[in-house]
Amino acid sequence: MGAPGQMHMVNSYDPASDAEVGRRASALIERRQRVLGAPYRLFYRQPVEVASGDGALLFDPDGVDYLDAYNNVPAVGHANPRVRAAVDEQLGRVNTHTRYLSDQIVDYSERLVSLFPDYLEQVVYTCSGSEAVDLALRIARHVTGATGVVITSNAYHGTTQASAAISPSLGPNNVLPEHVVTVPAPDPLRDPSDDGASAALFAQRVEDAITRLERRGVRFSALIVDSVLSSDGLVTHPQEVLRPAVEVARRRGGLYIADEVQPGFGRLGSAWWGFLRHSVEPDLVVLGKPMGNGLPISAVVGRREHMDAFGRDVRYFNTFGGTPVSIAAATAVLDEIEDRELLQNAATVGGVLMNGLSELARHDRRLGQVRGEGLFLAVEFVRSRSQPVAAPDPGLANQVVNGLRAKRVLVSASGRHENVLKIRPPLVFESRHADRLLTALSEVLSETPDDDLVTTTP
Amino acid sequence: MGAPGQMHMVNSYDPASDAEVGRRASALIERRQRVLGAPYRLFYRQPVEVASGDGALLFDPDGVDYLDAYNNVPAVGHANPRVRAAVDEQLGRVNTHTRYLSDQIVDYSERLVSLFPDYLEQVVYTCSGSEAVDLALRIARHVTGATGVVITSNAYHGTTQASAAISPSLGPNNVLPEHVVTVPAPDPLRDPSDDGASAALFAQRVEDAITRLERRGVRFSALIVDSVLSSDGLVTHPQEVLRPAVEVARRRGGLYIADEVQPGFGRLGSAWWGFLRHSVEPDLVVLGKPMGNGLPISAVVGRREHMDAFGRDVRYFNTFGGTPVSIAAATAVLDEIEDRELLQNAATVGGVLMNGLSELARHDRRLGQVRGEGLFLAVEFVRSRSQPVAAPDPGLANQVVNGLRAKRVLVSASGRHENVLKIRPPLVFESRHADRLLTALSEVLSETPDDDLVTTTP
Repeated sequence: MGAPGQMHMVNSYDPASDAEVGRRASALIERRQRVLGAPYRLFYRQPVEVASGDGALLFDPDGVDYLDAYNNVPAVGHANPRVRAAVDEQLGRVNTHTRYLSDQIVDYSERLVSLFPDYLEQVVYTCSGSEAVDLALRIARHVTGATGVVITSNAYHGTTQASAAISPSLGPNNVLPEHVVTVPAPDPLRDPSDDGASAALFAQRVEDAITRLERRGVRFSALIVDSVLSSDGLVTHPQEVLRPAVEVARRRGGLYIADEVQPGFGRLGSAWWGFLRHSVEPDLVVLGKPMGNGLPISAVVGRREHMDAFGRDVRYFNTFGGTPVSIAAATAVLDEIEDRELLQNAATVGGVLMNGLSELARHDRRLGQVRGEGLFLAVEFVRSRSQPVAAPDPGLANQVVNGLRAKRVLVSASGRHENVLKIRPPLVFESRHADRLLTALSEVLSETPDDDLVTTTP
Repeated sequence: MGAPGQMHMVNSYDPASDAEVGRRASALIERRQRVLGAPYRLFYRQPVEVASGDGALLFDPDGVDYLDAYNNVPAVGHANPRVRAAVDEQLGRVNTHTRYLSDQIVDYSERLVSLFPDYLEQVVYTCSGSEAVDLALRIARHVTGATGVVITSNAYHGTTQASAAISPSLGPNNVLPEHVVTVPAPDPLRDPSDDGASAALFAQRVEDAITRLERRGVRFSALIVDSVLSSDGLVTHPQEVLRPAVEVARRRGGLYIADEVQPGFGRLGSAWWGFLRHSVEPDLVVLGKPMGNGLPISAVVGRREHMDAFGRDVRYFNTFGGTPVSIAAATAVLDEIEDRELLQNAATVGGVLMNGLSELARHDRRLGQVRGEGLFLAVEFVRSRSQPVAAPDPGLANQVVNGLRAKRVLVSASGRHENVLKIRPPLVFESRHADRLLTALSEVLSETPDDDLVTTTP
């Protein structure tokens, strides 16, 4: 702990850079720096000031619009009127907690668990994805009597002490404790191209990791994986890549926790939850981000016997978890997803994006791979001359992210090598938005010289 | 972990009891039990169904009113119109996160830190008190390079893994890890009656606890104390009881973390923060519950050098922490506290309550002590015949809590012996509310026979 040196973050504003930010922004950044300080990073070489939003658009104080192709929290759209009305109505009534009776939380909970396989019958509410992950780990510990956790090597699961301890993507100063072991995530660009082989390789790594834990004297409690491996660079295919690994986890006496904070609530278009694509049965499912469209609500869904064992022995109460206002927002989110058929929209518009990105990749070798599902897409940038070994190009990813920002299209980068463009817009993203994104990306790419070609040309 | 047996919770509904709950409530409880399960306890022998609220009142679905003398979250009143309007306006605009520029969070942060001593200059936002405590512990760890934490023996600091690990009030199955040691809280009813001696005794216990940690090979990182020791039974006097202990903590190389989740934001009437009454200088201050009047927002306030060291080395981002909507609610809360002079109100109405309770205690030996400050008051119930040793009477506390509930006045009990009546209403509590509470309490006491007298009468 306390290792020296500035911690690196992909796509963050550098106050020491000479980027033009304008007088107003500059004064605000200075005040912000004084009172919020080092923990608060801004996105982009030139930060974006956000004053309002509407659907998939954000607006700065001058009314200039930005296309939001990044934010997964406002899944049913910025400033969604239905969420707003539901919250307002409930705030005008009352906003207490779960130790008084109220039918709204029961109605919502029944509706929520009905979206899961039958054996997942109960839900506990928390405020953030971090709190939900933290609670899932506590439940797994309680049920198994063990502490060992297996994660992927660039996982992100949260910011509480327990969830940060399983989040190596937070950087090298975030030293993992002894009860945590990492395994490389499947790498669709570099793994064996045969699907079964990739899944088998991942399962073997999990098997070895559990053995490694046991050699340390740590018993195995849980395998936790983001169902689309978002921070590992987005791995949506092969589709059942997690299945053999989950079988290993169960055989070795641990639980499987599906982190659905990012893929959940229909983002993938094909299903409500990412784990369904893998034909696996998680013991615990963690929900978050889009659940309340920005109102802080998250949850753990699980088996009755696990929830009962935990709730019987451990006192758990979360003051803000499942309050009437959060539940009102969450209810409006489900209404919007269902009534506006947003899973279908994610599949359709995601398809438009996927086609357009693939078309770009066909003509530009720097786009090493385009992958994804629904409205969660990734473009992996590589050095164009480095084939067949796909050398990651984080510099290009960074240039593209900031180039798109200059054209008022918001995305970011991620992945172990920080070379993966992350496209993850609100679920109300439309085909015309997809076209705008594709046009801007095409322009940025043509304006950005290919270093490999430049340097090899005499 | 996994110890058998139902975990005990003071003042919880027992589904196996024969209490009359009515057909509607009964059906709802059954559905609730199925989908929310064991982690979800209800208050009171007869649970209360809450449909709406207004100021210090709650209403059931039939419009029957309950006086809320328990809830500290809706500090500026249930269904507060100003908070509602602020949230609605912001939800109609936008609700993103802290990686875009926005002036609201900077304005609010400057205003918030101005309520603290000058050396506390920076703030980091989280969603719940638990998350804020968890973060404060992470910062303390980072700054000191040590892990040992000293807490009071019935402390409650939260529900994440790290904050539950310093919350012995969660019960015997919540086994504390090796880096945590407890010290008995000052006990105003049983400690030496000399103020200086009580503070010195507490400081000595902290000193010994740090030594105990070091003997285990654990270096000392932080002393964390709720500034009014809420879950230890509410200790508001002697006023500077924490000062010598804080000096010890600092001399031994640790930080002092003031947990202001309960006393903060003016509840004590005398000051914005409980630690100010102790003339101590915390290194980190944890805020929560009333901060957004029910919108999930909490924070850690601290010294620039600590925040900088943490933020520089550790990547910290909280998706829902400090979102525009949370900040809008928190801003409205400060407006309400200031414009309606709620600190003054807490002092005045708290005084009315204190006088009335003291008057009751003068005529009833079962009220062993009345204590508190502002709108945070405690009545400690003891066996009337057990003087001078004040034997706690949790049974009576439980009878009074449920007796008051039957008279539609909501309070609860707490403390190491569960014999302390906890009176902690919204800050908009008025003198007429105080009168209603005092009348109901007087009636309940006269209707509840004194066991000691009954059993000793032939």
